[in-house]
Amino acid sequence: MSFSSEDLAAIDTPAVLIDLDVARRNIERFQHYADQHGLRVRPHIKTHKLPAIAEMQLAAGAVGITCQKVSEAEAMVAGSRAITDVLITYNIVGAEKLEHLKALARKVTLSVVADSRAVVDGLSGAFRGEPQPLTVLVECDTGANRCGVLTPEAAEALAAHIHASPGLVFGGLMTYPPAGGEAAVERFMEEAKSRIEARGIVVPVITSGGSPTMMHAAEAPVTTEYRPGTYVYNDRSLVSRGVCGWDDCALNVLATVVSVPAPNRAIIDAGSKTLTSDLLGLTGYGHVLGRDDIMIDQLSEEHGRLVSQGPIGLAVGDKVRIVPNHACVVTNMVDAVVVTGDGRATPEKWPIVARGKIV
Amino acid sequence: MSFSSEDLAAIDTPAVLIDLDVARRNIERFQHYADQHGLRVRPHIKTHKLPAIAEMQLAAGAVGITCQKVSEAEAMVAGSRAITDVLITYNIVGAEKLEHLKALARKVTLSVVADSRAVVDGLSGAFRGEPQPLTVLVECDTGANRCGVLTPEAAEALAAHIHASPGLVFGGLMTYPPAGGEAAVERFMEEAKSRIEARGIVVPVITSGGSPTMMHAAEAPVTTEYRPGTYVYNDRSLVSRGVCGWDDCALNVLATVVSVPAPNRAIIDAGSKTLTSDLLGLTGYGHVLGRDDIMIDQLSEEHGRLVSQGPIGLAVGDKVRIVPNHACVVTNMVDAVVVTGDGRATPEKWPIVARGKIV
Repeated sequence: MSFSSEDLAAIDTPAVLIDLDVARRNIERFQHYADQHGLRVRPHIKTHKLPAIAEMQLAAGAVGITCQKVSEAEAMVAGSRAITDVLITYNIVGAEKLEHLKALARKVTLSVVADSRAVVDGLSGAFRGEPQPLTVLVECDTGANRCGVLTPEAAEALAAHIHASPGLVFGGLMTYPPAGGEAAVERFMEEAKSRIEARGIVVPVITSGGSPTMMHAAEAPVTTEYRPGTYVYNDRSLVSRGVCGWDDCALNVLATVVSVPAPNRAIIDAGSKTLTSDLLGLTGYGHVLGRDDIMIDQLSEEHGRLVSQGPIGLAVGDKVRIVPNHACVVTNMVDAVVVTGDGRATPEKWPIVARGKIV
Repeated sequence: MSFSSEDLAAIDTPAVLIDLDVARRNIERFQHYADQHGLRVRPHIKTHKLPAIAEMQLAAGAVGITCQKVSEAEAMVAGSRAITDVLITYNIVGAEKLEHLKALARKVTLSVVADSRAVVDGLSGAFRGEPQPLTVLVECDTGANRCGVLTPEAAEALAAHIHASPGLVFGGLMTYPPAGGEAAVERFMEEAKSRIEARGIVVPVITSGGSPTMMHAAEAPVTTEYRPGTYVYNDRSLVSRGVCGWDDCALNVLATVVSVPAPNRAIIDAGSKTLTSDLLGLTGYGHVLGRDDIMIDQLSEEHGRLVSQGPIGLAVGDKVRIVPNHACVVTNMVDAVVVTGDGRATPEKWPIVARGKIV
């Protein structure tokens, strides 16, 4: 990262550091792959929650952004006039959220997903009196076992229901792919698309997403659009999957050693309130850059415990830089990040405007 | 909980619900135990991060509060004039934090801990020119293997160093006890106390803490003060340890079912951004009240997956109440909680003023 040692010495810890030059390289790498394969890019902003980074993604060629909740989309749209096209990949349920959705639809090109008639009927009830219909995609479960209709037949039936619903227009198919599941995505989506088109309904978009498998996105050629999130920053989880290296990690946590109670143990001032307890299948809570021998084996809310097989070699007051297991959840823990790169002489503090937007 | 079904229907989700009547009962239960055993109570506010609940704890008989970071203490002190005595159970390291600590010491009776000469020397350097000395306790590792000096001899040496340091006054001994470790606390603290007193240095306070073992605090009679945190709300972790029952849980997460993709599976709108990934040794991410058959077996940031061995019996739009694994970390995820009880006719929204205070 391009923070100087003077920069790092001056930053109060724990702090979340962002290198915009690394982020830009990550953005351009996937945009280039997508351009080569005729895929549109619609990044998920959950990873950065920053309008300024969404603007970098749009400037690189993204067609719009993806958000997960209405309040998250509201914060992003309020933060940048460049954000004019938003997909919320979530079932929107409840009167209050539907009111917010209607207000947002008057400001930007908006689409959402649904995986049941109950959700579609709620959306139709809210939008049947609106000047513009709402675009609704069918969420499909291609193996991730979270939300989504389970079969192409069910996708067809729900697409037809959306198509027939006042206030709505059918926008296509959406999925979050299972691990290594491009073949499953292709099989499901091809069949669902054929069935829906056989009814005379157009399928304008087939959108998939997820950073772990993004460089294989073109292996499901039925896909028209891809929604990577973590790729902008990368993290220990993606390094462990071989998707990137440590130098591609644009987000680091800077922490200070506050205790060295035993020769092989040190305690830092970043705990689960900064690094989070997300393991994503890994052992330990992050990677200390330059110290492959160290394991972060335990977190309390404000303490991280570092252990080494040999001498820990750290003193009270030393600073360490950590690549967290999962970048997106770390962004959500802090009110601001410390940003460098893009020609800046000194680091800047950027508030995370879409942090904590859970409704 | 005393939220009515009309209250619950009107609350947008996910939301963190607090029942003040249950919290008050929890506060009074431990205060009564402590009073009976001559123990002072200094609750850790990390669990609620709310000045109004600290005021309830002080009104019940607490001698002051415990915070974990300087910024957390600042937010609490700014939020209530009743908060006049604060212990920060953390090694304060770094120029910026020491400046904040000095400012705080001019407002309230303040004490901190240290477990090394490096930390003590930093504190002394900051406070040697101040009008009032800073009270510093020695943090002792009685088996939790986090921070703390490892032996009574080391505690004695550090106490003598604090005693001899300009700007500081030795305040006693502090520990976070290991699981079931009252005997270990008693053994360590008795010896450290004798050694320090043999040098002619008074040991005014011996403070221990932790909700899991709080009802055994008196089994370490050397202890003068106890610092429970989670006890005010309780959580699934404490229920699983037999410390309390579900009716004693003053914090619930309210969530809405957004998808029922399979007969035995439902998805709610609370994920790791609300419930957090903290497991605390448990299986699953929380307990759905009234549904012992349901396991929350997987979280994404905004999705919680509920599975049952039989039919899930939930529909899109249904609301569920969840006792999270760990109450303290849930408080930190939201900007506000929804509060009932204490004679309120309708729920109120309270901002979490000490949320996200990590520095």
